[in-house]
Parts: sequence; structure tokens; C-alpha cells
Amino acid sequence: MMSVLPPAEIGAPFSEIDTPALVIDLDAMERNMALMAERVKALGIRIRPHAKTHKSAIIAAKQVALGAVGVCCQKVAEAEALAAGGVRDILISNEVVGARKLRRLAALGRQIRIGVCVDEFAQIAALAEAARETGARIDVLVEIDVGGRRCGVAPGPEATRFAAEIARYDHLRFGGLQAYHGSAQHLRTPAERLAAIEAAQRAVTDTLGPLEAAGFTCDTIGGAGTGTFLIEGASGVWNELQAGSYIFMDADYAKNVSDEGGNAPRFEHALFVLATVMSATSEAQVVVDAGHKALSNDSGFPSVWLRPGLAYHRPSDEHGVITVAADAVKPAWGEKLLLVPGHCDPTVNLYDWYVGVRDFGTPRARVETVWPVDARGATS
Amino acid sequence: MMSVLPPAEIGAPFSEIDTPALVIDLDAMERNMALMAERVKALGIRIRPHAKTHKSAIIAAKQVALGAVGVCCQKVAEAEALAAGGVRDILISNEVVGARKLRRLAALGRQIRIGVCVDEFAQIAALAEAARETGARIDVLVEIDVGGRRCGVAPGPEATRFAAEIARYDHLRFGGLQAYHGSAQHLRTPAERLAAIEAAQRAVTDTLGPLEAAGFTCDTIGGAGTGTFLIEGASGVWNELQAGSYIFMDADYAKNVSDEGGNAPRFEHALFVLATVMSATSEAQVVVDAGHKALSNDSGFPSVWLRPGLAYHRPSDEHGVITVAADAVKPAWGEKLLLVPGHCDPTVNLYDWYVGVRDFGTPRARVETVWPVDARGATS
Repeated sequence: MMSVLPPAEIGAPFSEIDTPALVIDLDAMERNMALMAERVKALGIRIRPHAKTHKSAIIAAKQVALGAVGVCCQKVAEAEALAAGGVRDILISNEVVGARKLRRLAALGRQIRIGVCVDEFAQIAALAEAARETGARIDVLVEIDVGGRRCGVAPGPEATRFAAEIARYDHLRFGGLQAYHGSAQHLRTPAERLAAIEAAQRAVTDTLGPLEAAGFTCDTIGGAGTGTFLIEGASGVWNELQAGSYIFMDADYAKNVSDEGGNAPRFEHALFVLATVMSATSEAQVVVDAGHKALSNDSGFPSVWLRPGLAYHRPSDEHGVITVAADAVKPAWGEKLLLVPGHCDPTVNLYDWYVGVRDFGTPRARVETVWPVDARGATS
Repeated sequence: MMSVLPPAEIGAPFSEIDTPALVIDLDAMERNMALMAERVKALGIRIRPHAKTHKSAIIAAKQVALGAVGVCCQKVAEAEALAAGGVRDILISNEVVGARKLRRLAALGRQIRIGVCVDEFAQIAALAEAARETGARIDVLVEIDVGGRRCGVAPGPEATRFAAEIARYDHLRFGGLQAYHGSAQHLRTPAERLAAIEAAQRAVTDTLGPLEAAGFTCDTIGGAGTGTFLIEGASGVWNELQAGSYIFMDADYAKNVSDEGGNAPRFEHALFVLATVMSATSEAQVVVDAGHKALSNDSGFPSVWLRPGLAYHRPSDEHGVITVAADAVKPAWGEKLLLVPGHCDPTVNLYDWYVGVRDFGTPRARVETVWPVDARGATS
């Protein structure tokens, strides 16, 4: 809880960044953001990028400047942190349960435009009560399970019953459907991803039929992630994309076979964990100062950037072992290595600061920005 | 980076704790601490518990009050946070590499008693220079690789060369050996753990021979963890135990077959992640609000406390799926469940606050304390 010092100062050369550090290649991130904005414009629909990836009000503002209608969050605390940083339109693309959280959600609804998802009928009255007490207005999307087998009501007529209940309350507004298929993002082949999203699309249309028959309009049909957004975007069904990882790209996404008819945008790795070789006493391995507390290894270990023959293995809490193939160059003791996180979102959540580097990978590389991870630890 | 609100207030009933929350059963933790103090006293050696588990100056002070000589940390930033909270004697049981970190380490050496490990010859002069510039005195232990295949010099005469180099500098003091075998803690059978620590012991004695022949005394021969400390403690070789997890115990430790001749102390699970059922739309599963950002799943998923037939699966960043066996009671929507983390240390690092509960598990259960996780995120 003591403030964690930033690992670098603005203007410092790359070599002076202390480790472990969460480093952004600013040029690559900006190219990723521009590329997504261009693609979304071509699709002719909205984007509301997921801020659970970056947890940063500054990055959210850049996304809005490039045309995003707002951002998504997963948690009330995340939305609080981003609203405090100036974000004016947030959809909590998730269910929020518990009286304390509902009060906080409603309080946000007095300050900014706020939306939330439901998949439990009783929750609607609880939401309405919190909104009424606070005098807030809350957009409510009904989440449907489009294949992720996590949250959401079953596709079909059930959502219409929810929409009707939402419509009963003055302080709530039926905002549409949340139709996100998370696990489809990481299916490895284009054909698998296409099949998953086509099934999700049938789930949405099966739900829209009864809604429209009952006179309900869906302002928002939200969903899609970095791995599948071209499919949802071209479907004619979804109208608001929620991709988040595209700004950074993680090592796991790099394992996707990424070619939807040669049209897939090439997002670049833009986020790295910088680590130092802190021990080099063995022949075929070195040890770096970044373990489980500096990298989330839930989706595989990080790759070692531009260092063929080096592989990250056997992390412990504060160490990672880098094995060195017979034909590879062994890193020197004290040398710094760039790791591409296996999974960006929970890795970002381990850090208090981003170190933004301009001219990354060149001898001119310098720290241009040090940004707080505003919603780090905002899990409630 | 915005301050994260504590999930409960002191005095609140258990039912009012917001989720996800890191909850301590204070009675169980105190029993664990008393049991370890009693065992260490019987062994007749010192304990310097590892604070990488709890990252809390308050808990460190309780350990010292029960006889600990100080604590271990893994990182300079961790030591800074605990020193700021009043801890007066810290061994960084790890290598510290980089000029900025060495300056901070030396600055700590002006305030408290500080020790650190080395396994690289060139590092000794760098440490001495930082200590000299600051006017600090630093104890330096030579780490030897006793089987963990991570950091450390090879057992045998190499450590003597290091001790002689350390002895050359006024501001450094040769403090002894760091001889920790991390992976041995989680070998499943007593026989496997015994064999690993016996091999580690041979590595230590192979190193002590040359050291003693050269006239060096080891004030400290440090090592051991919760899974093996009885073996090191009875060896006659180690004189300072570094166990840390015993205060909390995680789900992975519960998988160890724990019977060294019937003598093994029964440490209790004392740390939990409290989570809320936020979605319950499926028959045989519910979804809780604690995923990768609220639990470190590197050593297996959490178990669900006292709820047979419930199992945590398929975590995503902010969700965990709890499957419900056919003969088990399905948790209700909005119900709170206690999860025993698979791995306590990196899970603690995800939280800003501990919620300490007295009379845990009874109808009288109340929040007695809300403690900061002082060194949360202190990875540098």
C-alpha cells in the first residue's frame, strides 16, 4: 500500500529503466490504435474498447479521441478509477452484485453515462432501487450466453422478459444486449473462430426476434474481442465492438493463426515486461528478476523478445529461469531482456506504472511518459 | 494507482465484507504463528520468517514478538515498505542487481540492519561501493545452489573465494550462506522431501569445509520453508529458518503428504479470498467475481472452503466458474463463498488490504482489523 516508485523518470534513456518494469512501445501502440480506428470506420459501426486491458484513463482518452464512443470496464472500482481520470461514458460489460457495489454504481451514474449488464431477474429491481435513491440513470443491457458458458441468460425469449422488467423502472433504460464470446478469441484457426461467432450470431438473432416482436429496440448489441472483431463487425448484427487487447497484443494472441482471408490487421506487440538477468551461474540458463508477481502466467509463459533460442521457464514468485539453446547467445549477468507477457490484462494489473518509450528498439529509445495504471487492483 | 478502498470497515459483521476480499482467519493465523514459535524453540535455532508471503509490517512485528530475529524479503522495494512500517532487521534472501537498487539497498543499511545475497563475484565490489558511498554496513551471504537450480554458486570451494572477497571491504561483512531449496517444499511425499534436503545438506557441508579451513565462520546458514523446516531444523547444519507460508497455508501445501514421523505440525488454512456468486444461470455451475486478477492460479486453482462438491474452474480475468457436483448444494445467486488460494504469496500481492476476521466461521464473525498489504506491488 506504500506508494510504489515509478521505475524510470521521463526523459531517461531506455538503459536506465529499473526492473521489473511494464514498458510500452508508444509507436507500436499508436499504430495499433490507428489501425483499429481505420478498420472500425470501414466496418461502419461503433467501438467501445475494453479498458480492462489497460486500466488507464490516459489511454482511454486516446481511444475516445480516435472515435471510440466510450470504454468498457468489468468492475465498478475500475469505472470509478477511470471516471476520476476523466472518462465520461462507461459500460460495465459485466454483472454487478451486492448492495455496496450498486450504491457506488449509481453514484457513478450521477457523474457520467454508465451502463451495466444483468442476467438475473431479481437484480433489475435492486438496480432500480439504487438508481432511484441516488437519482441516477443507468443503461441496462441483458447479457446472453452466446457460447462462453459463463454469465448470461439463455438465447431466445428470456431476454424479452428482462427488457420488459427493465422498462418498468424510471431510472433504468433498456440498452440492448451484451453478446460477448470470450473463449472464441483464442481459438487457433480462422475456421474455428468463424464457427464460434456464427453460432453466437444465431444466438443473438434468436433473441432479437422476440424482442422486436414485443416492440423493444436494442440501441447496443455489444461484443467481440481482438481475435474475432472482423467477424462480428461484418455480421450486420453487432453494432458496438468491445475489443481491448489490440492495443498491446500478448504472446497468446500471437499463437492465433491470423488470416481471415488475408484481411486481418497486423497488430504489433506493444507491451513488454523489462527484466534483469540477476543470476547467471549455470551454463545453459540465466535467472531474471520477474516471476509470478511480475507476470501473469495463466495463458502461458512470456516469450523473450527478439532473442531466438531463449525461453522463459519455471517461474517462481520473484524469479524466472531463461533457458539458453545450444546455438543461442547467453545473456550476460546484469543484462536486461524484454519479455512479451503471455496474457497482458492480468499482467498490467500487477503494476502501478507504465513506462512509455519512444523510438523503442533503437539507440535513441527514451522514456517519454510515465503513466499510472489507474485501476490497478480495482477488483471490486 | 488510485487508492483502492478497503472492502470492509472495522467492526462490520462478516456478511458486510465486499468482494473480492483477502480475508484472514485471525484465530487460525495466531495458532499457526504460536505453533511455529513453539517448534522453533524446541529445535533450538533461529527463525527469520519470509515476509514475501504477507508483505505486512504488522504481521512481521507479530512474528518478531514471538521470537523471530527479523524477516526475509526478496526485493529492495519490499524491504523499504517493511522498514517504513517499523521492521528493524531484514535479510534480502536474494540477489540485488543494478546501480539504482544498490543505492536504495545501501540507504536501507543506514536505517536498519540489512543483509543481502550474492552469487556473482563482480557484484561484491559493486555492493561495497554503494555501501561505502552511503556509509552503510551490509551483511552479505553467499547463496549456494542446494538443488533448486535457480540462483547460487556451486557448492564446494567457490563460496570461500566469495567470502574472502567480501572480507576485503570495510562496509561489507561476510554473514554466512544462503542455502534454500524452494522446489523441495512442494514435493508430495515425506521421503522425497527428506531426500532433497539431505542432498542440500551435503551441498552445505561440502561448502562449509573449505570455508572453515580458510578461517571463515558462518553466523547464518539460512534456508528452509514450510514444507521442510523440520528437516533443516534438525540437521545441525542450518541455524536460521526462513519459512513463510505457515502463517496462511495454501491449497497447494494441503496436497503435501504431511507426516514426518507423525511429528509434523498441523498448520491451518488461515487466508481466504471471499467471492460473490454473481451469475447463476446454468444448472450445474455458478460464476464468482474472482478470476486471475483476484487469485494467482499458478499452482492450481483454489479450493472452495467447506463446500464439498464445488470446484473452481475456467477462470478468466474477472470471473471464476464453480462447478456443482450432482449431489452438492448449488450456491445461491448473491451468496458469498470462501476460496483457499492455490498459492498465497502471489495472491496476497494482488490486494491492497487484508480483512482480519475474529471468530471466523461462526455467527459472531466480525472484522477486527483492516491491514494494508504494505509491500503489495513492490517488485523492484
